[in-house]
Amino acid sequence: MAGTDRRRKSEAAEFCREDAPAIILVEPQLGENIGMVARAMLNCGLIDLRIVNPREGWDRAKAEKASSGATMVLDRARFYTSTKEAVADLETIYATTARVRDMVKPMVTPRQAATEAVELSPTGRKIGILFGKEAKGLTNDDVALCDAILHLPLNPAFASLNLAQAVLIIGYEWFTMNDDTEGRYVHKSRSKSARPATKEEVIGFYEHLEDALDKSGFLRIEEKRPNMVRNIRNIFARIELTWQEVQTLRGIVAFLSTGRGGGPGKGKDD
Amino acid sequence: MAGTDRRRKSEAAEFCREDAPAIILVEPQLGENIGMVARAMLNCGLIDLRIVNPREGWDRAKAEKASSGATMVLDRARFYTSTKEAVADLETIYATTARVRDMVKPMVTPRQAATEAVELSPTGRKIGILFGKEAKGLTNDDVALCDAILHLPLNPAFASLNLAQAVLIIGYEWFTMNDDTEGRYVHKSRSKSARPATKEEVIGFYEHLEDALDKSGFLRIEEKRPNMVRNIRNIFARIELTWQEVQTLRGIVAFLSTGRGGGPGKGKDD
Repeated sequence: MAGTDRRRKSEAAEFCREDAPAIILVEPQLGENIGMVARAMLNCGLIDLRIVNPREGWDRAKAEKASSGATMVLDRARFYTSTKEAVADLETIYATTARVRDMVKPMVTPRQAATEAVELSPTGRKIGILFGKEAKGLTNDDVALCDAILHLPLNPAFASLNLAQAVLIIGYEWFTMNDDTEGRYVHKSRSKSARPATKEEVIGFYEHLEDALDKSGFLRIEEKRPNMVRNIRNIFARIELTWQEVQTLRGIVAFLSTGRGGGPGKGKDD
Repeated sequence: MAGTDRRRKSEAAEFCREDAPAIILVEPQLGENIGMVARAMLNCGLIDLRIVNPREGWDRAKAEKASSGATMVLDRARFYTSTKEAVADLETIYATTARVRDMVKPMVTPRQAATEAVELSPTGRKIGILFGKEAKGLTNDDVALCDAILHLPLNPAFASLNLAQAVLIIGYEWFTMNDDTEGRYVHKSRSKSARPATKEEVIGFYEHLEDALDKSGFLRIEEKRPNMVRNIRNIFARIELTWQEVQTLRGIVAFLSTGRGGGPGKGKDD
């Protein structure tokens, strides 16, 4: 889901950063899962996929199909015969694990890990995140190699995710930490008519509407009129109308109050 | 992935809240996707699933299999023949859409929507999130019904998610907003020996180590000794050792410095 311009898939690597965490899959069993992980990685601007001892005969074609076009991640994937080799150049590694181990180990949420990664980014810190095989997860030996355990806060009685979903949430936290999208803004169509209305245009509409309401008898009780006018203006004041929308509302008022003759086509404003 | 005690699936509904947003699937095509959505919902404590006109002949058995046990969500799902009916009792609804529409519409990130939901929670605000059919998304008419568009900040050139993944990210933002897990903490085994070591125990280990290093000649250069001792203490001071770990380290020093005879078994500390 992109809220900005649509880009082509071929440009996807441009939105991946060299300092993004590496994703390390230890003994993945199914090509589909490797493909879905590649897709989730590219969704989140991650490009460094490392695979330790995938199950013999895993299906590259199935991985590609499941990746929905994230082949650039699969193409760059590197293969290792041990976790030790796969993490050799990294400086901080996190274990993702669904089971609580009988270990004394720092537990970190994905948001905290992403915050720390961004803080350490200027130092060139190389980070990796380890995922174990689908059903069994990481071995205790692999967890012991890691600096901390990544713990996803989810329903404690129903917390199990598939591999790609865990990668997605962790990657999403990392991506949003580097993203400056405003929390809330109004999307404007790019056409000129979608420009914000000036106050003169908005007040012109108010006066048009109030004039029609006066004529129709809706505002006939004199002592209530000022308050009703303010209430009606407050309804529309919340909308941040565009120029085009002001024209639409004026057309509605004209049509309702005088029939077709007074509506669109009557003047330059339409 | 739970970092806390393991709970049983049957307890999962206890972690769902009545004021959690409703998930509304408009014309979903595949039972598997409905099931995976149910799973993602339960992961995130969401329980109110509403389905508008699912494809005729969608496979409930496949949905159940894909839900990985989130049948309580499927069991409670309600079915509607129009979006209008499905959202009738709600007060704020969000459209999720991958395409940018030519509409003037507030755009909101999932984190912002979750923040607003938590702020409005004391007022009993009823919130729903609309998802369109798998390939095509929501119709423009359904989007126009909504108060705002939920926009997921992801790789602009590779932002498409499947239905369950979009539900997961949105639900995850909602769940974590209501969750008080610390960003980082040290997981401690529940056994008594995993209690934090007292400073007396830690300093006892330092002195044991330094004594062994004196005897071995490692600290033989007198003018360098104070600085080396501080550096070595600083290595171990970063670890927040447990009582058990102090015993392990003392055992290591004893074994290395004097051979098996001085190691575990020599005293009550082991």
